[in-house]
Amino acid sequence: MKIDCDLGNSFGSWIKGHDQEIIPLLDLASIACGLHASDPLTMQSTVRLAVKHQVSIGAHLGYPDLLGFGQRSMNLSAHELTAIIQYQIGALQAICVGEHSQLEYVKPQGALCDDILSNLTIFRVLCHALAPFGGKLPILLQTMPGPSAFQSIAAESGITLWHEIFVDRAYQSNGLLVPLGHQKAIIDDPQAVLERCLQLLSGQPMLSNSGMPLLLKGDSLCVRVDNFAAVSLLHKIRRLLDSLPRTGC
Amino acid sequence: MKIDCDLGNSFGSWIKGHDQEIIPLLDLASIACGLHASDPLTMQSTVRLAVKHQVSIGAHLGYPDLLGFGQRSMNLSAHELTAIIQYQIGALQAICVGEHSQLEYVKPQGALCDDILSNLTIFRVLCHALAPFGGKLPILLQTMPGPSAFQSIAAESGITLWHEIFVDRAYQSNGLLVPLGHQKAIIDDPQAVLERCLQLLSGQPMLSNSGMPLLLKGDSLCVRVDNFAAVSLLHKIRRLLDSLPRTGC
Amino acid sequence: MKIDCDLGNSFGSWIKGHDQEIIPLLDLASIACGLHASDPLTMQSTVRLAVKHQVSIGAHLGYPDLLGFGQRSMNLSAHELTAIIQYQIGALQAICVGEHSQLEYVKPQGALCDDILSNLTIFRVLCHALAPFGGKLPILLQTMPGPSAFQSIAAESGITLWHEIFVDRAYQSNGLLVPLGHQKAIIDDPQAVLERCLQLLSGQPMLSNSGMPLLLKGDSLCVRVDNFAAVSLLHKIRRLLDSLPRTGC
Amino acid sequence: MKIDCDLGNSFGSWIKGHDQEIIPLLDLASIACGLHASDPLTMQSTVRLAVKHQVSIGAHLGYPDLLGFGQRSMNLSAHELTAIIQYQIGALQAICVGEHSQLEYVKPQGALCDDILSNLTIFRVLCHALAPFGGKLPILLQTMPGPSAFQSIAAESGITLWHEIFVDRAYQSNGLLVPLGHQKAIIDDPQAVLERCLQLLSGQPMLSNSGMPLLLKGDSLCVRVDNFAAVSLLHKIRRLLDSLPRTGC
Repeated sequence: MKIDCDLGNSFGSWIKGHDQEIIPLLDLASIACGLHASDPLTMQSTVRLAVKHQVSIGAHLGYPDLLGFGQRSMNLSAHELTAIIQYQIGALQAICVGEHSQLEYVKPQGALCDDILSNLTIFRVLCHALAPFGGKLPILLQTMPGPSAFQSIAAESGITLWHEIFVDRAYQSNGLLVPLGHQKAIIDDPQAVLERCLQLLSGQPMLSNSGMPLLLKGDSLCVRVDNFAAVSLLHKIRRLLDSLPRTGC
Repeated sequence: MKIDCDLGNSFGSWIKGHDQEIIPLLDLASIACGLHASDPLTMQSTVRLAVKHQVSIGAHLGYPDLLGFGQRSMNLSAHELTAIIQYQIGALQAICVGEHSQLEYVKPQGALCDDILSNLTIFRVLCHALAPFGGKLPILLQTMPGPSAFQSIAAESGITLWHEIFVDRAYQSNGLLVPLGHQKAIIDDPQAVLERCLQLLSGQPMLSNSGMPLLLKGDSLCVRVDNFAAVSLLHKIRRLLDSLPRTGC
Repeated sequence: MKIDCDLGNSFGSWIKGHDQEIIPLLDLASIACGLHASDPLTMQSTVRLAVKHQVSIGAHLGYPDLLGFGQRSMNLSAHELTAIIQYQIGALQAICVGEHSQLEYVKPQGALCDDILSNLTIFRVLCHALAPFGGKLPILLQTMPGPSAFQSIAAESGITLWHEIFVDRAYQSNGLLVPLGHQKAIIDDPQAVLERCLQLLSGQPMLSNSGMPLLLKGDSLCVRVDNFAAVSLLHKIRRLLDSLPRTGC
Repeated sequence: MKIDCDLGNSFGSWIKGHDQEIIPLLDLASIACGLHASDPLTMQSTVRLAVKHQVSIGAHLGYPDLLGFGQRSMNLSAHELTAIIQYQIGALQAICVGEHSQLEYVKPQGALCDDILSNLTIFRVLCHALAPFGGKLPILLQTMPGPSAFQSIAAESGITLWHEIFVDRAYQSNGLLVPLGHQKAIIDDPQAVLERCLQLLSGQPMLSNSGMPLLLKGDSLCVRVDNFAAVSLLHKIRRLLDSLPRTGC
């Protein structure tokens, strides 16, 4: 089990997040690529941080909307969406090469992620856009209940899916996240989050928002890093993970 | 001897240039990468055009200044310039991969090109930024009189220089271009341009702006494509080139 | 009856439209304000053209989406939409003051116009955003069949509505435009357009797309200026208008 | 004597500064206008803050360079600079009108400010750009030793100069600031800053960086707000100012 966070979200002189404190605690860093956040210099310094701390680098793929931080849905043609995905992947990949590293996965961001989860056609465009890169870039997506259409669409393009579990977000009994904006969508209490992590790591079910046991499977624990409290929470999750016997993967 | 032009300079709904008419006449297309001009969708359609007409694709590298079309010098740190160069290369390279093609060279644009020609330190940054790509990306630069410092700096990083000759620009007796803005910097008469091409291709000297014979060597003829007249001129240059016996290269 | 067109749609070095040829033929010029097109220098030169030819200046209000030329709907809060409207009005108004002129009206553009026509809430935001300017800025909107909700909402804020009739667009029998994209949405034949103008100006009904007589009332004729053919068409419409006896208004 | 700070420097979801804490302590708020920082919505909320706390609003005028936060000099024509200045003034003025307030002054920002201080031609462009607004917009500029050319150029255009004194910056014996980047350019010790304020307010000379007494005159004290420590410093300066008997102005 890994830990992933969204990093490299600064833009020019505007700093966002606590990358320096967070990155030593991660396995996977999903880095913005200049369209919804970041710029070439910010990407370079974020990649350097990741390389220094031996964290795997992923391209956090967003809509081209800096002002809206990629949170507004955009109705793009399949051609334009393909171009935007490949542009971001290539830009970050070249910065990685410049730092003697490489891109290891991709993750959709903000409204693009929401649109993908609610529209398989958009997910298919993502997979087709990734196919020419030879199956070397898995997609990190939130875990789904049961065998999913996403899995089979990705497989058609030779793409691997990695699943992340949001440890500080509430889940519904059907295995889907409680949408942001809803009451109790976010789990604020660090102790409760840690308990959920422990359940996940020991293979026990965690409770859905209506109290049903829910057995989630995933490859990585995603922690939201909007505030400085996340740093101390991440320290605790890291310690928990490191204390467990390593099994496979 | 090849022909190269700057293409893919549209932005969103703003069309610039006559790419469709021009691209079948070229060997090398230097394509903008979204910082001084273009956007991911425009890059995709330009790369498709190039692939269809079997034209080699180069990254036209500019300063991040869309409003100024890359024509205003920017005082960037070596770190930032490196990031900007690699970002553009990667973005275009990934679009090429998406179209089952690849990037074959780079060419500096506008004020970045001017700054490189007048400042070896900036040229050195360009070479260092390219080095991690393993010497696979030659730099297309205007031809220089005599053995140049550019050549040796590029060689240190394992980079090849390609030289272009501006057939519709006047040269000074020292082998440098008459700067734009100066009277007679541009050669407007298509017949005069063709004559110069013929001289170049037959190994004869062309005349400098002060009437001195000038023996320029290069790998490619660059034609400015600011106006529609360029299309008919390019047709004639293409025909001239194709009529000559192919020798080496 | 007046003639209005959308002008000032260039951006930096990217030229769009044929403003110099068109502006002498207009009464009203709807000028982009830097968010969906244009930039401060383009606004200045466009306002100069309008002042020189004594054409009234309107602010063409669009969404903040340069890459999409304002053609993509954006889901903005009432606060943000208000800010965006006032920002554009003020920017153009100050450029007008700089050229010893003034702003005389506003017109919504692209997707913002579509959203306004299909959603009275958004129209209400526009009216509220204009209200602090003291009712001095009429809204130019396409003509509506019968007494419209738009009229009464505008009146509540002390705003005047001006109506434009699209002389090169087909209308449905209910008085609404045939949506773009539909077959026969555009009337390509200049002679047919002129005939419609003549009908409009002489108070006769023109025919809807299904052949029903339609009596449209408006303050201005709007002509699309996407292509150079528009220049010659506008010359003819101007001549037609100038040949008629001036009545009122 | 007043207190002024630079506010409204956020952009989209990127927050910069501590506007909410700072604004109740100010007399003058210099607000970014969307070209080097800010956006329409941020301008609106900043203007609301200023109106709520009865703080005078100024337009902080910068170069159009969001990525560089206006800190990189740009070589603009007088026409373009004029357009950029008027654009920003108008945009903020209209947002003020929308909040039933008004713009009261302007202040050049970053590299534009540096360029103005070192080049009277650029200052002249600023004055000419302001002239059409009828002398209603004073320019807030750093205090100058002796009778200055700036004063007379501004007067020619009917423009008033307001002078600000940087209380946390060191001055040279000639009355000019020690340039940023130089050792001891910034006065970090809050106690030392307060002492200087007291000297200024009681009409005593403060010491230059080489220990010479320096009698600076100004209309406002400017405090840098790069870090959170500025909030507590501003509280103390405000208390100091409020404790003094009000004389004139």
